[in-house]
Amino acid sequence: MDRVIRLGMLGCGTVGGGVATILAREADDITARTGAKLELTRVAVRDLDRDRGLGLPSEAFTTDPEEVVAADDVDIVVEVMGGRDPAGSLIRRALELGKPVVTANKELVAHEGPELFAAARAAGVDLAYEAAVAGAIPIIKPMKESLAGDRVERVVGILNGTTNYILTRMTEEGADYEAVLADAQALGYAEADPTADVGGHDAAAKAAILASLAFDTAVHADDVFTQGIESVNATDIRVADRLGYVIKLVGIASEADDRVAVRVHPAFLPKTHPLASVRGSFNAVYVEAWATGELMFYGRGAGAMPTGAAVVGDVIDVARNLLQTVRGPTESQHRAKSIRPIEELSTQYYLLLDVEDAAGVLARVATAFGEHDVSIAQVWQEGGGDSAQLVLITHRAREADLRATVESVTAIDSVRSVASVLRVEAEVFDS
Amino acid sequence: MDRVIRLGMLGCGTVGGGVATILAREADDITARTGAKLELTRVAVRDLDRDRGLGLPSEAFTTDPEEVVAADDVDIVVEVMGGRDPAGSLIRRALELGKPVVTANKELVAHEGPELFAAARAAGVDLAYEAAVAGAIPIIKPMKESLAGDRVERVVGILNGTTNYILTRMTEEGADYEAVLADAQALGYAEADPTADVGGHDAAAKAAILASLAFDTAVHADDVFTQGIESVNATDIRVADRLGYVIKLVGIASEADDRVAVRVHPAFLPKTHPLASVRGSFNAVYVEAWATGELMFYGRGAGAMPTGAAVVGDVIDVARNLLQTVRGPTESQHRAKSIRPIEELSTQYYLLLDVEDAAGVLARVATAFGEHDVSIAQVWQEGGGDSAQLVLITHRAREADLRATVESVTAIDSVRSVASVLRVEAEVFDS
Repeated sequence: MDRVIRLGMLGCGTVGGGVATILAREADDITARTGAKLELTRVAVRDLDRDRGLGLPSEAFTTDPEEVVAADDVDIVVEVMGGRDPAGSLIRRALELGKPVVTANKELVAHEGPELFAAARAAGVDLAYEAAVAGAIPIIKPMKESLAGDRVERVVGILNGTTNYILTRMTEEGADYEAVLADAQALGYAEADPTADVGGHDAAAKAAILASLAFDTAVHADDVFTQGIESVNATDIRVADRLGYVIKLVGIASEADDRVAVRVHPAFLPKTHPLASVRGSFNAVYVEAWATGELMFYGRGAGAMPTGAAVVGDVIDVARNLLQTVRGPTESQHRAKSIRPIEELSTQYYLLLDVEDAAGVLARVATAFGEHDVSIAQVWQEGGGDSAQLVLITHRAREADLRATVESVTAIDSVRSVASVLRVEAEVFDS
Repeated sequence: MDRVIRLGMLGCGTVGGGVATILAREADDITARTGAKLELTRVAVRDLDRDRGLGLPSEAFTTDPEEVVAADDVDIVVEVMGGRDPAGSLIRRALELGKPVVTANKELVAHEGPELFAAARAAGVDLAYEAAVAGAIPIIKPMKESLAGDRVERVVGILNGTTNYILTRMTEEGADYEAVLADAQALGYAEADPTADVGGHDAAAKAAILASLAFDTAVHADDVFTQGIESVNATDIRVADRLGYVIKLVGIASEADDRVAVRVHPAFLPKTHPLASVRGSFNAVYVEAWATGELMFYGRGAGAMPTGAAVVGDVIDVARNLLQTVRGPTESQHRAKSIRPIEELSTQYYLLLDVEDAAGVLARVATAFGEHDVSIAQVWQEGGGDSAQLVLITHRAREADLRATVESVTAIDSVRSVASVLRVEAEVFDS
């Protein structure tokens, strides 16, 4: 006789609907692979009247999430409501009750992960969150388990599908940011208020989670230097293409001297790099580890079914542990590391300057660069007359020096504005 | 106080050396992440006199692998000797003794997997084999655990680094197969007897293991239709490039109507497909699953440290289970499925014919195709006079019909030979 493990789900929106659909359709194989039947017994929703077409009895639904957490017929709590509040307190309550939790909530884990992991550890139960980073892509488990014997040196991720979709269309159509964004909004690929995506904040939350895992320490979302794609323009994309690069919004986490650096910003990536071929709304996480070398994990970063599948994978994992009354590997945050400020970053830079007279201004621009120890690798003029622009690619320089250079250059009369400053991850390697 | 888990290793060649090096260098982090110290207490080698520079006491080494398996101070057996015999009987013995086993042995798992999994199940201990497929790439665990809630529909893998290295150089240098193979042998990228690699047999073993996992059934290495890259020539590569494809040696496993099809052969892949950008000796596994959609796992398929890291990852997993006196998810082979023969494959084909007079022969060739219900999508002539060649791309056709067509075409007087027949995986989707 198969045992039954009962699930209580908090929220039943896009991801929750995916979870319920997968559990129903794949029930037989899931039972065989888990060694127990997984039964969705309770679901907390906002609106009881909406028909979700999930084939669950109406008694399963309630508007009280506390009730789901506390219910006797709930063995595992699945949190797919999102947001920090009340999701955080509900998860804490579940853990206190000794119930393992599966969550898809990146915002919560990126801000309150260490406290939640400590609560799970104290309660001796699992807290799984595969779906919180890069949707369907198995990355949390591989980092925590498969790479447990290795030393991760760097993680570079394309962690937000909306921005990758926009940048891909800008690249392939030569279109401008505003036009593509408007179209993406009309098509439902971008939200009406796109700030969380285009501002890099969604990617920053995921980068913080990945950095914590990679380096056995606690990195908070606020520790991540974050710059969005709002200022990337068609000229930037064209120049990048001409030089053999594509522009991607990347999250980069690295470690040196027990200091962790985590940043999210648009960057030039060489076209030959595996990340450069990640198109449209796909996500990917590229990992460099001491023994393993380079790894890349690629797949869908969002969507009801992909994210739902990641949640169900976690549920099966947690259920298998429940059956053996054990728990999976808990978060290893045994190393205290400080955060390296962005000013200490050393990489190459691309700058686009609007100037009045390209020829006359070059000497003054070059002098400003030299005064701040930023060496110019390439420079040329785009356009001419009233719409003249100077393109500069630097050698590797310190971010603090580059910023001082930008300030000096901005002060030159015949420089109208510094239109773009983007990092060039030429070797996709810096420290 | 930390517990100690003691490892006995069978073999200490390339992979074994990597394992020992990683265990030594990463000892502190491994202890923190595992919750126990992992100690390599015994190593079975062929030659006791060789200095391996691993910092292990000389008493740790023995020439008797049976002794390592049976030793009281060995909790986990790590098999990195390779080959089916005596590795298979040593692993069986370890399992009988209730000792979990980690192996990197693809040949053994592809041929005797079901029996070994049954022995592990009977003994109630873990048998882990992440390193057996695609070296450092975490693919076994993600398939078994992360995708446990989903239905895998297709797996397409670049599973052999040597052949991918050869095909990449042929593509990027326009060089011929024989020249690149000779160079690869001189550089140590290919063995003196390269048959296992270039004949597709190594990839076939890995494809069988992946198919078993993906479809919850037992697929044997001998069930895999296998064709190597020996006959791929520079013209094939050039034609593929012109049409927007690259030629890769792929392992493709798919399922329809409870029948599993597994094949390894060179194929045209669209340049825009993520697998097309896997260059040099890298491996990648592309997975299509019902809910998850498309996933790709990319990384190093071989080498002391990458493969060693995969073995150590498994060892940590098994050690964590030992500490909680449980075991990980065992192989689910609960579905009996038959193997679909290659004759029933339906895909597109590319053919290269050496002909005496391209113009005169076309009508007769076209007639032969028509008689066997194989429809021609594109045809053109390469070269002329004595070295004239006809290139044909078919629409989707059945393999059996294509083979009959090739037989008829070969019989036409003015067709000197059918120089190439390769499958075109245009949508990288067929069934």
